[in-house]
Amino acid sequence: MNTPGSPAEGPLVGELGERGLIERIRRRLPAPPPDLIVGPGDDAAVVAGERGALQILTTDALVEGIHFDFRFSSPADVGYKALAVNASDVAAMGATPRLALLSLMLPGGCAIATVDRLLDGFLELALESRIALAGGNITRSPGPLILDATVVGYARPRKVLTRGGGRSGDVLYVSGSVGAAAAGLQWLRAHGGEGDLPMSAAVSECIARYRRPSPRARLGALLGRTRAASACMDLSDGLADAVRSIAEASGTGARIDASKVPVHPGACEWFNRTGEDAVHAAIQGGDDYELLFAAAPRRKGRLRGVSRLLRGLAVTPIGELTGDTAMVLVRDGEATELPAGFRHF
Amino acid sequence: MNTPGSPAEGPLVGELGERGLIERIRRRLPAPPPDLIVGPGDDAAVVAGERGALQILTTDALVEGIHFDFRFSSPADVGYKALAVNASDVAAMGATPRLALLSLMLPGGCAIATVDRLLDGFLELALESRIALAGGNITRSPGPLILDATVVGYARPRKVLTRGGGRSGDVLYVSGSVGAAAAGLQWLRAHGGEGDLPMSAAVSECIARYRRPSPRARLGALLGRTRAASACMDLSDGLADAVRSIAEASGTGARIDASKVPVHPGACEWFNRTGEDAVHAAIQGGDDYELLFAAAPRRKGRLRGVSRLLRGLAVTPIGELTGDTAMVLVRDGEATELPAGFRHF
Repeated sequence: MNTPGSPAEGPLVGELGERGLIERIRRRLPAPPPDLIVGPGDDAAVVAGERGALQILTTDALVEGIHFDFRFSSPADVGYKALAVNASDVAAMGATPRLALLSLMLPGGCAIATVDRLLDGFLELALESRIALAGGNITRSPGPLILDATVVGYARPRKVLTRGGGRSGDVLYVSGSVGAAAAGLQWLRAHGGEGDLPMSAAVSECIARYRRPSPRARLGALLGRTRAASACMDLSDGLADAVRSIAEASGTGARIDASKVPVHPGACEWFNRTGEDAVHAAIQGGDDYELLFAAAPRRKGRLRGVSRLLRGLAVTPIGELTGDTAMVLVRDGEATELPAGFRHF
Repeated sequence: MNTPGSPAEGPLVGELGERGLIERIRRRLPAPPPDLIVGPGDDAAVVAGERGALQILTTDALVEGIHFDFRFSSPADVGYKALAVNASDVAAMGATPRLALLSLMLPGGCAIATVDRLLDGFLELALESRIALAGGNITRSPGPLILDATVVGYARPRKVLTRGGGRSGDVLYVSGSVGAAAAGLQWLRAHGGEGDLPMSAAVSECIARYRRPSPRARLGALLGRTRAASACMDLSDGLADAVRSIAEASGTGARIDASKVPVHPGACEWFNRTGEDAVHAAIQGGDDYELLFAAAPRRKGRLRGVSRLLRGLAVTPIGELTGDTAMVLVRDGEATELPAGFRHF
């Protein structure tokens, strides 16, 4: 694993300065899309936008020591994730992410090579997701390294998904599986990083999921476009938090069936080993960038249509929104209080 | 002056958490403009945008210990400036700022009252400038307090001003006066803050200018709309830097007449006292958020029209873009090399 800023990595960012770093990043950008009229290097970016579309805007920061640790993630992983968490927020609104601004705050002792690697990861996901880096800012940090990205997406009017559109009786679905990122991070913390330690394929998947979450951009866009879902949110702060947030914003309660929650096999393996309750740990753990959404039972047909287009991404019904305001987790036939979500702050 | 995070200021941000802080901010926001469809509190903001307009996007961060010091600026000043520096970038593109996202990174020991004051300043300028706070993010910082704002503005197609549109023979103009912010900051540093020390009205103006720069939003929008200017940029990194940047991007040289540079009277007073060359210090000093723009001589009529609408803001010709690539400062009839700009990094 890299140790950013170590002397072995060569020249430091201070030697290039802001101007030099921006020029270095500009040189490696792919050709801009036709609607990016002015890209990085001027006072601001200029974008034509999608005619008649709504704009979706989000910002989310990764702070060294809070959201990542270079012992557990490479600079390229961190760059990838900085874009992924924002793309995920846009997807959760039923929109398609298209543009990004990247604000970098770099310690003086940061190597230029580290910035190159951060950009490797950021631009890898940008290319995969057809998101253009439109601009940003670079400045010095007296402490942690920080990546603060802003992502702009588009959606057609009336096709946007908020948290608050759910109704009592709507079924709650979650994409993929949960708990993998939390298990992966716990594994890395327990072992002081990855090194050459042996691990199962399932645990290895958890670590990869923690480092490089896949924003569910296609699912989000389809749910919005087809209006198959009534409400949607991503699992950045865990499933329990997302269920509570959608229910609260929708003015409903929620009832989740623990036996239906798709816990990642690697998370089951890890939490069984640590003696934690796997379902509890998986629904409370943050950093899963799956989508939770509500859909009216009569939308089942549309949802099947969406599922067919997902290329193997599972979508699992795990419960429903209810007419009261209770947040319930049903386990072995017994109703318990749904735990609170992961608290970042 | 406040000392953020001091026990006297009451409860800390950790007690409220991210959710609580967002709710606290939401409650004090004015009614959103009609085109802000989803404001703070969901995964992302949703905006209708201006029909047929180009979007202008910029981001700029203020980092404690790099860009501000709570001994010299109150939290409200810092909040005000975090929006001002971004609005200035949008104005420099000939556009009108309309929406902001605010990403806050707060040390655990930060008082809730400090966040309230940061928002006081941010929202004061937002209200003055009719910019809506559309969303953002709040997270913990292991070190410095950081405000990273993104501002979105609009401009009509073909009315955008870049740095690169200047031509040889265009006259260079600067708005207002320069050097005030640098002088104000030097004064504060020399005196360890403001306290109750006596100072002249001119120096007091410099301190105010450093703490709360006025983005030249009206001038920028008018220059874009009327196409009076060929190129434009703000003076965040000083006049010398801006002249170099416009000339380089336009593929020209530049010649500035030192005797014409409108140095702020307080800056003259301060730099005369410290023995620094006032013109040199004023054109190298950063943090003046005036606009530098180029205009073809035949646009003089339009420019007079713009000037009449500026309510007293001076616009001063200080030199011109030239056919070679030399960057020249003429002093007492002698041509010297234009100094380099202020280096933030």
